[in-house]
Amino acid sequence: MLLYGGGSIKNNGVYDQVIEALNDHTIVEFGGIEVNPLYETCMDAVKLAKKEHVTFLLSVGGGSVLDATKFIACAIPYENDPWEIITTSGACVENALPFGDVLTLPATGSEMNPNAVISRASTKEKFAFSSPYAYPVFSILDPKTTYTLPRRQIINGIVDTYIHVIEQYLNDDLNTSLQDRQATAILSTLIEIAPKLMDSKPDYDSRATLMWAATSALNGLIACGVTQDWSTHMIGHELTALYGIDHAQSLAIVLPAIWETDKENKKEKLLQYAERVWTITGNDNDEIIEKAIESTVQFFNSIGMKTHLSDYTIDAKEAAQRVSDRFRIRGVVLGVHKNLTPDIIQTMLEKC
Amino acid sequence: MLLYGGGSIKNNGVYDQVIEALNDHTIVEFGGIEVNPLYETCMDAVKLAKKEHVTFLLSVGGGSVLDATKFIACAIPYENDPWEIITTSGACVENALPFGDVLTLPATGSEMNPNAVISRASTKEKFAFSSPYAYPVFSILDPKTTYTLPRRQIINGIVDTYIHVIEQYLNDDLNTSLQDRQATAILSTLIEIAPKLMDSKPDYDSRATLMWAATSALNGLIACGVTQDWSTHMIGHELTALYGIDHAQSLAIVLPAIWETDKENKKEKLLQYAERVWTITGNDNDEIIEKAIESTVQFFNSIGMKTHLSDYTIDAKEAAQRVSDRFRIRGVVLGVHKNLTPDIIQTMLEKC
Repeated sequence: MLLYGGGSIKNNGVYDQVIEALNDHTIVEFGGIEVNPLYETCMDAVKLAKKEHVTFLLSVGGGSVLDATKFIACAIPYENDPWEIITTSGACVENALPFGDVLTLPATGSEMNPNAVISRASTKEKFAFSSPYAYPVFSILDPKTTYTLPRRQIINGIVDTYIHVIEQYLNDDLNTSLQDRQATAILSTLIEIAPKLMDSKPDYDSRATLMWAATSALNGLIACGVTQDWSTHMIGHELTALYGIDHAQSLAIVLPAIWETDKENKKEKLLQYAERVWTITGNDNDEIIEKAIESTVQFFNSIGMKTHLSDYTIDAKEAAQRVSDRFRIRGVVLGVHKNLTPDIIQTMLEKC
Repeated sequence: MLLYGGGSIKNNGVYDQVIEALNDHTIVEFGGIEVNPLYETCMDAVKLAKKEHVTFLLSVGGGSVLDATKFIACAIPYENDPWEIITTSGACVENALPFGDVLTLPATGSEMNPNAVISRASTKEKFAFSSPYAYPVFSILDPKTTYTLPRRQIINGIVDTYIHVIEQYLNDDLNTSLQDRQATAILSTLIEIAPKLMDSKPDYDSRATLMWAATSALNGLIACGVTQDWSTHMIGHELTALYGIDHAQSLAIVLPAIWETDKENKKEKLLQYAERVWTITGNDNDEIIEKAIESTVQFFNSIGMKTHLSDYTIDAKEAAQRVSDRFRIRGVVLGVHKNLTPDIIQTMLEKC
């Protein structure tokens, strides 16, 4: 089964390349997978795959198509209600159809990890699951397939990758010398190549580097032996689920606010980040941290990524209420030190 | 089959831990695998394993035991003369016995790669082979098992890891922003932790970091998409084969000479290395490069690693003749640009 999204692969030549490569295979097509892929759409694919006795899934597109493919691969052989795959975060998965991917949009890292994020239209929910069976058998990343991407998707890819790294790096661990440097290696690389990526004429080397950076940011390497804090993603997912803004946009809005709110816990790493990534030094730690947060926001803005809810015509007060209510109902408290309560998240989002 | 080396695992408690963990398994022991493991020894193990119908190999020790285990795993099911595994660089290998390892000496990277180096006593030869079947099924790295290592082995581990990175990083590639930083991440980490590793009292965090650095240096990650230049290793292997000096010692002798000889080809990367790893900047490129080479030698010396042939009572003129003759006979020319001819290698080694 060949899975794809809105049809951009039919305009940029990738669809034709894939069809040619598979000319001795029987193909069942399933197109139309949306950004932030829906459980409902996935279940249509599961039904078709079962009917056609599909034996292998090939995702052609970005992270949304690939995440959907991961869910479909796990859901096809699953005997109970496949929504359990989501509600157990993947723990119930015991096998899956094999799948591969041709990745045309660098951002997600999904091509080299066992994770996927699926949304449910009926309840406006967005949840992640993970399973060792959700690893692609292969992933093909050709930088040229990114040449026709809209500028917005490149911007999203840069910011998404950057914040994937931050969620694993900017913790309060003290003895992670190598992991820290492996993380900032990706951040500094993104900052270096960002201006070239903004050129109207695509440049092979910077596109290749962006692809490899996005993969490296979320393939588990920089996560080895560190404390991870995915608070920005948890809040961002709610904003996307409620307001439909892009994943990377939601992250760029939330990250600076998280840092302002949680900077005492993240102090040592914020100082290290300031020095290693932005070469900010000085005697006043608070000032250094403020400058590091500012530099990050300026970097996002410099490539056209807006960082306030109002930039997306979202009312901050309303969003703060709705998002924090969702955490209240579920009893969710975020942060490595479980200090980001729904009340604190509400106050924080009101300032976003 | 439990494979180990000279018996240090019987003194440091690791042997007892392994025996306890395997108490419901039938174990055939094969000890006495030497540093720079010999083909002849490996073939004894192959004979015993076949006789005892061994189904799994467990390497307990350092890189030498593990490399031997890799060869033995490939040789057991091999139907022709197993020396072909070496002469074809592993290309003839089509299956292998599964094997795992408990790694007690951080240096080799063998625990997360498909490579091994085997020597032959009868001809004083030392060759590498590689095969996808030579990946361990699992590797256990417990920093505490390194606490009883002799200081010399820790020094070797630091230098070996450092130069493994250099062989993949210090090339003439221009568009490898991420790989460059992933490489220097390991170098800077080694420089940071080296003083702690030299403390007489072992420190868990720096030992853990050394282990992870050694693994990360040679697990294929920083090799992705770059030009590799293993000239230092090729020459170093000959010095070890002929004079029995430690692998890392041979590398520390050869590397500075390679850089002096090949610095025009490696100019851009040497300048980058000078700035990123040693924060050496200036206007005179030649001077920057000289300082970078000096800083590297000083770093090796600072942890007690000697960098001249005479430090090991080896006559440079004789070694230069013997090593270069070996390359002459085999018609080997080294360097990415095939500029290190046997004559140039001879002149170079005379100055070592």
